[in-house]
Parts: sequence; C-alpha cells; structure tokens
Amino acid sequence: MKMFQPYLWRRCSIRSPALGRMLSRYAMNGGDGPHSYAQNSSYQKGFVDVAKPIIEEEISRKLDIKHLSSTFRIADFGCSTGHNSCAAMQIITEAIRRRFEIEGLISQIPNFYVFFNDKVTNDFNTLFNSLPRERLYGAAGVPGSFHGRRLPKAILDFAYSSCSLHWLSEVPKAVLDNTSPAWNQGKIHYAGARREVCEEYVNQFAKDMESFLDSRAEELVPGGLMALLVPAVPATWDPNSAYTMTTENYLFGTCFMDMAKTGRFSKAKVDSFNIPVYFPIPQQFKAIIERNDKYTIERMEVLDNPGKRNLIGPKDRAAYLRAVSEEMLIDHFGSEIIEELFDRYTKKLEASPLFSDPDCDKSIIMFVLLQRKPESYCSAS
Amino acid sequence: MKMFQPYLWRRCSIRSPALGRMLSRYAMNGGDGPHSYAQNSSYQKGFVDVAKPIIEEEISRKLDIKHLSSTFRIADFGCSTGHNSCAAMQIITEAIRRRFEIEGLISQIPNFYVFFNDKVTNDFNTLFNSLPRERLYGAAGVPGSFHGRRLPKAILDFAYSSCSLHWLSEVPKAVLDNTSPAWNQGKIHYAGARREVCEEYVNQFAKDMESFLDSRAEELVPGGLMALLVPAVPATWDPNSAYTMTTENYLFGTCFMDMAKTGRFSKAKVDSFNIPVYFPIPQQFKAIIERNDKYTIERMEVLDNPGKRNLIGPKDRAAYLRAVSEEMLIDHFGSEIIEELFDRYTKKLEASPLFSDPDCDKSIIMFVLLQRKPESYCSAS
Repeated sequence: MKMFQPYLWRRCSIRSPALGRMLSRYAMNGGDGPHSYAQNSSYQKGFVDVAKPIIEEEISRKLDIKHLSSTFRIADFGCSTGHNSCAAMQIITEAIRRRFEIEGLISQIPNFYVFFNDKVTNDFNTLFNSLPRERLYGAAGVPGSFHGRRLPKAILDFAYSSCSLHWLSEVPKAVLDNTSPAWNQGKIHYAGARREVCEEYVNQFAKDMESFLDSRAEELVPGGLMALLVPAVPATWDPNSAYTMTTENYLFGTCFMDMAKTGRFSKAKVDSFNIPVYFPIPQQFKAIIERNDKYTIERMEVLDNPGKRNLIGPKDRAAYLRAVSEEMLIDHFGSEIIEELFDRYTKKLEASPLFSDPDCDKSIIMFVLLQRKPESYCSAS
Repeated sequence: MKMFQPYLWRRCSIRSPALGRMLSRYAMNGGDGPHSYAQNSSYQKGFVDVAKPIIEEEISRKLDIKHLSSTFRIADFGCSTGHNSCAAMQIITEAIRRRFEIEGLISQIPNFYVFFNDKVTNDFNTLFNSLPRERLYGAAGVPGSFHGRRLPKAILDFAYSSCSLHWLSEVPKAVLDNTSPAWNQGKIHYAGARREVCEEYVNQFAKDMESFLDSRAEELVPGGLMALLVPAVPATWDPNSAYTMTTENYLFGTCFMDMAKTGRFSKAKVDSFNIPVYFPIPQQFKAIIERNDKYTIERMEVLDNPGKRNLIGPKDRAAYLRAVSEEMLIDHFGSEIIEELFDRYTKKLEASPLFSDPDCDKSIIMFVLLQRKPESYCSAS
C-alpha cells in the first residue's frame, strides 16, 4: 500500500516568531476604490495581452486533449482581485474549447474549474464578486502563499502565474541585519545597493522559485502545463536614456531617506524595511528553471510589456506602485506617511526626463511554458 | 470515448430578470463586529456540538479507509464566516486521523483538503483570516449557491452542511403574487399563514433539497459520505407552553405590520417581502431524502439543539436573528429601519412568558448521514 506523507498546512504570520523574519504576507490593495489594484493594474494587464497569442498557440500545439478528465482544472497563482486573472482564465478556457471545436470534438469539451490563489490578506470578496456572471468555469479561492503547497496532489491540468513571482516569500534576513556584510543601510531595495545585498536578493528569489516549482509539481498532473510570466530586467541598460522597475524602486527609496531627514520617521525605521521583490535577468531566470528537474521547458521567451503604455504619466505610475505596496508600507511606517510619500515620489517621477516616456522603460517579461514530467522521469524520485 | 456535458457556471443575481423572482443571495453578517454572524452564532454552535459524537461514531464505523486517495476532500456547504465551520472540520479530520491511529495505520493518514462553500456575498475574507493557524487541512473557498453545482465531478469524499439547508433558493413566487391563492398578504413567513402559503414553502423546500442532493451526488465520489444537520420543528407543539423557530418568525412578522401601521413603510412593502427559510417536520424531511435515489440513508435522527441554552435572553435571540437576516432586510426595507425593527422585536420577546425559557424552545435538528451510491446503483442512471 502507498505511503502517504501527511502535510501540515500552516498560515503565514507577518513575523515568524521562530525565524524572527519579516515574512511577505501583504496583498495588493483590495476593493475597487481610487487606490485599489482593480483600478490600478493596467500595467499588469500588459502581461495578459502579450501572453494571449502565445498561450493560444501552445494550447493548440501542446495540450494533449485525448487524455483529459471530465473537468479541466486550472489555477492562477497570484490572482489578486481578479480583473486581469479573469481575462487570463477566459483566454485559457476559450483556447481549449476552440481546440476541441477545430478537431470536431465539440461533444467532448470538458468542464472547467479554476482555483484562484493569492495571499490570505487578498481581497477575495472583491474577486468573487467580480467573477463574470456567465462563464465557462467553476471557481474557488485558495488563500495562502504560493511558495508552499496550496492544493491537493495532482489536481491541476494547467497552472498559471502572471506578474507575481517577483514577490519574495520574505525579505532576505541579512539585508536587515546590521551585523551582516549584506546590511542594506539607507536603502529599501537592492537597486543601487552593494553586491552582497544583490546576492541575498538573488538567492532568495532562487529559493522561492524552487519552492514554487516544487509545490506546483505536487499539484500538477504528470504532463500538466504551467505558463509563467515574470517581470524581469535586461542584463544591462543605459541609465542615461532608459530605466527599469529597479530604477523606479531606487527612486522610490530615496523618498524614504528624504522623509527620514525631515524627521517624519527615523533612519533606523528605513533600515529595518526592505521591499521583498526581485526582478531577475533572463539568464538567472533560465538557470533557475533549468536547475529544477521536475519539468521540461516547452517554450521560453523574453517579451516586452505593452502595459507600460497604459501608464499615462507619473501619477499613473505612482498609483500603480501604491496599489501593490500600500498594505506593506502602512504596516511598517503607519498610514499617516502614505500621502506624503507618494506625493514626493510623483514629484520625483515628474522631475525626471526619463519617466515621462514609456519607450524608455526597458523592463521585460520572461515567459516560460513548462510541462510536468511524469514522476518516474524526475531524477529526484 | 466518454461524452462530457459542458456545464455553464452562473452567478445568481438578487432578482433573476428571466424569472422575475427574488432569489436568495444574502449571506450572514460578515466581519466580527457586534452584529456579525461570528459574534452571534452560539445557537448554531449547538448543531456542531450534537453532531460531534455522532460523526465520530459514524467515521469510526462507516468510513472505508482502505480505499482513500492521498488527499481526503471535504466540503462544508453554508460555511458562513467559519467559526462553527472550522470546529466541524476539526471534528471530521480528527476523527479520521484517530481511526487510522487506532487501526495502526499512522503512516497512511491522508492529507486533508476542505472546500468552504457559501454564497458569493459571504464574507470569505473573514473566513480565510479565521482559519486556524496550524491545521490538518488545506483550504479553499467556493462562492455560490449550494443549490447548484459548485465543485468538479467526483472530487469529494465527505460533504457536510449544518444549519443551512433551511435557506431556500428563492421566495416561492406565488406567495408574493396578489393574484395567487397563495398570496401571503400581511405576513413575512408561512408561520401562521394559510394552507396554500405553507404548501408553496414546502414545495420550494423539497425542490431545493432535490437540487442540493443532485448537485452533491455529482461532486461526491461513489461511496462518499454526507452529513446533514437541518433545523426542523416537531409536527405539533403546544403554543401555550412552547415555541419553535416558526413561532419566532411569526412574532418577528408582526413587528413589520406594526411598523407599516405607523407609516414607516407601506403595507405593500411588507406584502412584497417574505423570508426564504423553511423548517421541515421530520416526516417531510425523511420523505424528501428517501425520494432521492442517489444515496443510501446510513443514519437518521431527531436531535435537540443545545445551542438554545447559549441564547441568554431576548437580546441574544434578537441578535441571532439579526446576524442571519440583516443583509436581506436592508436590501428590501433600507438600513434605516433596522434598529427600530429589532428594538420592537426584542420588546415582543421580552413581553412573552415563553421566550425567556430555553426549555420552551421545541425546535429540533434533523441529522442524516447519507452515502453516495455507486453510479450503476442509481435507478436514474
């Protein structure tokens, strides 16, 4: 008889008492108000737009429709409040339906079921209320970090994650530790920081990707597909004529130090805060994926993000950053600093000759389509 | 090759334009404030308490632990914001774990996964945030009416529903129709109403139970178990010395007519409103279950609800009714009537010699344990 490993499901707390670390449990802004993710995610919509033709093509080429069960099960990891997620789920389910139609197998079109995953603090109420009134799929919400197991074993036929995997499971401990060579004093991100800081971020990203890939490998059926879209940056760019998301984070970081200098909060308060996001360069991303041996890489591409043209100016750009970081900032600095912080940030964006031109944004998207190997093909098993 | 029936998933709207009916999409009060379900569901906790020894006994006797998959999948239909639901899920998972321990099969204890279902308007955010920090089960929230399909086919090993099935999918159309012999003029419930009104409610309950049982039959694996706890009333009771939930609804209804007389709203406003709940008598409940041929009845019992002793007086009793009906009342009458309505109701409860004594509450609980027949055993297939 098969041996089962009982899995103890845990909820994350903001600070793990056992580890003394700041864990990343913050979700995007909920609701549909002026600062909500729902109202400020046109940038991320660009990920869905570039993914559409590729996913359609891959489903028409790669999906083994002869061996599907009666319900095709999809999950979106990092769905937020659903606007972009529902668009992506529509693309996937429609592409599969079309595939059956084209092959003359209309009577065999499966049912669809979508698991929408995001952190426990995500606004699932808004997500559930924004699901399309008539849709091809049944829906469930799955709360909790995608860096761990979230679903029963081998339940998924298709996993998807867009603009989410750059969020780390925690701020690397060493960058907040004033006894460490990687202490990131006076900065809130690795952008413009010392080599040791960057290495801590890279390592954390690699570790988190590994736990993501391992968790999904448990949840996917053998042969199941996984499409990942990860915000990334080129290996180099000319800072005089271009910028990326790391440049933005550097600029954002200077606002904190400016405010500390005016006495709004202490410099120590800034030193004890770092943003848990990492934007890989293509080579790093590729190496991490290749190192994990539970999947075959079916397709990998570097894509531009058309969503940057949806950010009309500095105000939009600041609003986009606010929608994704406000919860985290309030928890550390208090809500009273938010307006001033984003005013300062908007002014800095306005003062820069670069940020008014979306063509100067050299941020990229890494797309990868993976296929879960049959268990026996993994060298680990 | 197997033929699949694609299933079109729909969200309910409050009023179905096609049917012109008031559909029941209201959930219990969310959050954890003074009027929340979380703070006012000690009555419903009684259902969990009486179910505990029975469920433990049945799991130790009936559950076929030799043929379980690696993840044991449970669903709670009508979970609300989770307080009582988590207690029930704890009971079920612990009982299964103990069963494996007793049989010396500790290494084979399965993983557990729980699907928490309630209406789209349910406060799933509060539910997710109140899940125990460490628990034996993974968790997903499933939004939508349990009168339709909510989960993939044959995904469940165990279905559970407590104190939820008395909520009808809609108010019977005829009771709001002034041309029908079942028009329920001047009343908000079938309690104390004419025979025709009662019949409409009974028929709606039977139809809703049927759609519930049929939907779960799709979602349960053959051999899967389903435990249902439904609030019910005895066939008769002496109104001079006892009361039930229908008596309460009658008394509650008189408050509406009193307010209409004072001009707070029109009598027509009351005539166009009825509460979509039905409390069956044991014989009705048994007959409905028996008529559905997709299950075997493994156990059926009439139980007392110890939760009534958790309602210390009229204020508690009114708060309990408010927590489960406020959303629906606000939608029809507006929020401005709520305080006065429940003040009036509390005073009526206080003025009654019966309602101060929980022993006068003759409301009962119908417990039934069903087992999903193998498909070939159903006469319908």
